[in-house]
Amino acid sequence: MFQSYTATTRPEDGPPRLRALRNALQNQGVDGFIIPRADAHQGEYVAPCDERLAWLTGFTGSAGFCIVLPDRAGLFVDGRYRVQARLQCASEFTPVNWPETKPAAWLRDALPAGGVIGFDPWLHTPDEIDALESGLNGSGISLQRMDNQIDALWADRPGPPAAPVRTYPENLAGVSAASKQHGVAKTLQANSQRATVLTSPDSICWLLNIRGGDLPRLPVVQGFAIVHDDGRVDLFAPPEKLDGVELGSTVQTRPVEAFEPALRTLSGPVRLDKATVPLRVLDILRDSNMSISFMQDPCLLPKACKSQAELAGARAAHLRDGAAMVEFLCWLDAQAARLVADRDHVLTEIDIAQHLEACRHATGALQDLSFDTIAGSGPNGAIVHYRVTEDSNRRLIPGDLMLVDSGGQYLDGTTDITRTIAIGPVGQLEAECFTRVLQGMIALSRARFPRGVAGGHLDALARYPLWLAGLDYDHGTGHGVGAFLSVHEGPQRLSRISQVPLREGMILSNEPGYYREGAFGIRIENLVAVRMDPRPEGGDLRDWLAFETLTLSPIDTRLVVPDMLTPDERSWLNTYHERVATLLSPLLGAPARDWLAHACKPV
Amino acid sequence: MFQSYTATTRPEDGPPRLRALRNALQNQGVDGFIIPRADAHQGEYVAPCDERLAWLTGFTGSAGFCIVLPDRAGLFVDGRYRVQARLQCASEFTPVNWPETKPAAWLRDALPAGGVIGFDPWLHTPDEIDALESGLNGSGISLQRMDNQIDALWADRPGPPAAPVRTYPENLAGVSAASKQHGVAKTLQANSQRATVLTSPDSICWLLNIRGGDLPRLPVVQGFAIVHDDGRVDLFAPPEKLDGVELGSTVQTRPVEAFEPALRTLSGPVRLDKATVPLRVLDILRDSNMSISFMQDPCLLPKACKSQAELAGARAAHLRDGAAMVEFLCWLDAQAARLVADRDHVLTEIDIAQHLEACRHATGALQDLSFDTIAGSGPNGAIVHYRVTEDSNRRLIPGDLMLVDSGGQYLDGTTDITRTIAIGPVGQLEAECFTRVLQGMIALSRARFPRGVAGGHLDALARYPLWLAGLDYDHGTGHGVGAFLSVHEGPQRLSRISQVPLREGMILSNEPGYYREGAFGIRIENLVAVRMDPRPEGGDLRDWLAFETLTLSPIDTRLVVPDMLTPDERSWLNTYHERVATLLSPLLGAPARDWLAHACKPV
Repeated sequence: MFQSYTATTRPEDGPPRLRALRNALQNQGVDGFIIPRADAHQGEYVAPCDERLAWLTGFTGSAGFCIVLPDRAGLFVDGRYRVQARLQCASEFTPVNWPETKPAAWLRDALPAGGVIGFDPWLHTPDEIDALESGLNGSGISLQRMDNQIDALWADRPGPPAAPVRTYPENLAGVSAASKQHGVAKTLQANSQRATVLTSPDSICWLLNIRGGDLPRLPVVQGFAIVHDDGRVDLFAPPEKLDGVELGSTVQTRPVEAFEPALRTLSGPVRLDKATVPLRVLDILRDSNMSISFMQDPCLLPKACKSQAELAGARAAHLRDGAAMVEFLCWLDAQAARLVADRDHVLTEIDIAQHLEACRHATGALQDLSFDTIAGSGPNGAIVHYRVTEDSNRRLIPGDLMLVDSGGQYLDGTTDITRTIAIGPVGQLEAECFTRVLQGMIALSRARFPRGVAGGHLDALARYPLWLAGLDYDHGTGHGVGAFLSVHEGPQRLSRISQVPLREGMILSNEPGYYREGAFGIRIENLVAVRMDPRPEGGDLRDWLAFETLTLSPIDTRLVVPDMLTPDERSWLNTYHERVATLLSPLLGAPARDWLAHACKPV
Repeated sequence: MFQSYTATTRPEDGPPRLRALRNALQNQGVDGFIIPRADAHQGEYVAPCDERLAWLTGFTGSAGFCIVLPDRAGLFVDGRYRVQARLQCASEFTPVNWPETKPAAWLRDALPAGGVIGFDPWLHTPDEIDALESGLNGSGISLQRMDNQIDALWADRPGPPAAPVRTYPENLAGVSAASKQHGVAKTLQANSQRATVLTSPDSICWLLNIRGGDLPRLPVVQGFAIVHDDGRVDLFAPPEKLDGVELGSTVQTRPVEAFEPALRTLSGPVRLDKATVPLRVLDILRDSNMSISFMQDPCLLPKACKSQAELAGARAAHLRDGAAMVEFLCWLDAQAARLVADRDHVLTEIDIAQHLEACRHATGALQDLSFDTIAGSGPNGAIVHYRVTEDSNRRLIPGDLMLVDSGGQYLDGTTDITRTIAIGPVGQLEAECFTRVLQGMIALSRARFPRGVAGGHLDALARYPLWLAGLDYDHGTGHGVGAFLSVHEGPQRLSRISQVPLREGMILSNEPGYYREGAFGIRIENLVAVRMDPRPEGGDLRDWLAFETLTLSPIDTRLVVPDMLTPDERSWLNTYHERVATLLSPLLGAPARDWLAHACKPV
């Protein structure tokens, strides 16, 4: 099994480590040190050797940082993680509400003029440090680059990940690595840039048509790369991981230790992505008086616009994943029925997450989960980023809504699906809220829109049915999804803050929700791909785009109030279910097939 | 009558003036000169003395500019004005597609290195000149500030506008001028700014609770103002215009000639709005080594959020304006019936615009039109910014759609309404398109949304019903509207590009449309005011906002396909019509009252 439900840290480990760190800082003559959750690649997941924040504080959330001072240690976490931080960390760590409280403001409060705060320039972006420095402007507090102070103390720190790299088949990628490299080189030329430094593993793996196993949930190899404007690529990664991998004549592999010296030999302008590059890289280039051109990672947009082969792979992966989901949902319904019949029957959130993982394993094609399954029953469903552990694990009771957000990493695609299931008979309020969430999801699914429209323009379509009842949800409506890469990828998003026009081939999630604190949570999520849409008869002569729904799995119609749906919405739902039944039935065992036929009946 | 339908310029006047200008430029030793349509206040309307672009080229559109070189004169106009420019200007002026062609690119093409282009720094913003200079970077072409070369040639140039200023009653403004000035001073203090320079007449009139008559359609006084962080205001305007106007002890009035010297005596930081300040003002402050703080005009946001008195005034103005509209629509229907019965009956677009103006005059309260009426019949309706002239005037025929976009300036408020009316029986396509436009208009009218949502997030709600049929419109869905001020005011907009969160009291237009080139145009426009909305029962504990519809006038239900409407849409329409009938009937003559009762019947 991929997912574990046991605690990996203990609150009592924090205080002695904190004391040791303070001693070390005193010896180094600095007043404090910043410990971010990040590594040098600024992704969502870090390797065990980069879990410095968890090692020091016990906090295992996916975002946050700690600033250690002589008399206090502020643990900066956002709204998702406040409860978790309090449970996981000793009282020596003071939770700070972030981003409401800016670290600069907190430091001004905590330190006198003359204070010096150390940080590791590999773990922060230039933007981050710029913001901190300008916030400290005039305070007399200064920042100082230094070696990582945790690494020096962490006796049993794991080694760097060493999973072997494998070639990603060209028939799945759809575009040769050489052609991708040529495209990026063209982009550099068009912007008069001589080279770019890639520090994001997704970008490097996409560019070279390779995958790795260095991180949980994310099939990438960690490393750095330099792409030159003539199409040559230098890949900096441990050579032993690359044994037997054919990267082509334009790619030179070099050990990670060669990265810093190689940066010094570049000639500018060098393109850097301010959002992800480590400050250390910028420092090295600036020390060499290199001209810098700040622009987005040139792999992001072509990676986001999937090739025909990647889209075909995504369809195949969703077919396979949809069948596994149906086997799971059929089992869950049977469990729910037992629960209604026998209140002593035990069904927990961990049972559910484990059975779902087993269903995906049974496909024989599962490489990893896309992320740790969110299995929130009843009130736990209202915690948007809930991850069940042995401590939080809850027994289901009839009347619960069960929210299950999960996904699989398959060689041909990454899936991400949320279904909310009625456990026995549920209340009218739950059904009305579910129907409004569904109406929003359908509105986006049916949307046609002209080229130029961005996710920020469409987000409200999914919220409108909820807004009419005075309801809303505090997350974006959708995120980009990679092709056997990160389940969260940019630059595309269905979110108010996104001004990136949607383009053909982009894969996004469509996942409105509604969360009633202490009561229930609802989310319905399908992945969709942006496609060119033929001009309807009589329509304007414009480029029309629309969404192709990739996810195939029934939506719990027992939670739908049919009278609330317009004829168009009802027709969408029934057509979707007909398609799901037709495509998945041949892939199912008899009980699941019968169950599916029933689940897909028109409303 | 306010609106004129006769041409004010002649194409043949252009070439001799162009020759005279070229001679003058040669004498001054420059290669070219830029003539924008702007004055020093960067508003939508300019006074006759500032119609330099029209004087030189004959082009009377509301946006554009001309760059005169020795061998060519480029007239830069956007898509709205290409046909008009060709009709109004002699062939010596070469139309340039703007903004597709940037003036810098055009200049690089037209001039060798060493070329010098003159411009009047009073008529351009720093942003404009920055963009031009950076576009010319490396070309060897330079820009040179100089006196206005048109003014020197324009023998019969009108004098500056001299309309008297009047106090705007505090019971209409709702907030005393002293209190507004105190608020702006507080804003300056909060941003550590010592003063701000106001160059936008709307802002000055709002701040001082005055109105003027210096411009057509816009009841403002032209001038400049400096607001100090202690609340003192220096107003620079011709003293003779201010006779008998009481401005309060904190306001010092000074002649316009005192403005430049006064700028030199300021101490910084001085707040300037880059979007509207003349470069000349920035130059003067920079020459005095003043520290500059670029931020939005501090009057914009408080002006946009109308006071309770302004909202009450808006309601009263819309009641009055709605009654005038109904008298007009009743007349128009009678005319249409005559036309159907007698094909020789003559009804033209000018007849319609004139009769509508007469209906508004008959209220006895009309101060001006809000803008020249757009009265586009049949194919002319598809020209979004159509203004009928004697040359373009078209006779209506049965089957036409008649699009009428108009508004009145009343002391208590500014109105802006569009109705599209069936002239006799119209086709099914027209009705289906009309219904989709109406559905979008209703979707926005019914919207409830949480605080923080901006117009850019809501715009798609109005387009969605059109998009589903492959239809769209090439303009924003709505603009801000002033209180007896500009019919187009910022910062609020219902447009993809707007990220400004909507706030209570903001007035906006809600005006989706659909335009079928060569065939017909449809637009339905109501003004709406943003209001706090009580939390619906069971709704989230959030600040909810919604739109109060201000405009009162029936929507032509003969163009509605009832089966396309959802029950909620139909209910909105019927409830609106019931409200219109109830509120307007008491204000109408008997024939119009009967007509209204019929027009407001439920669908």
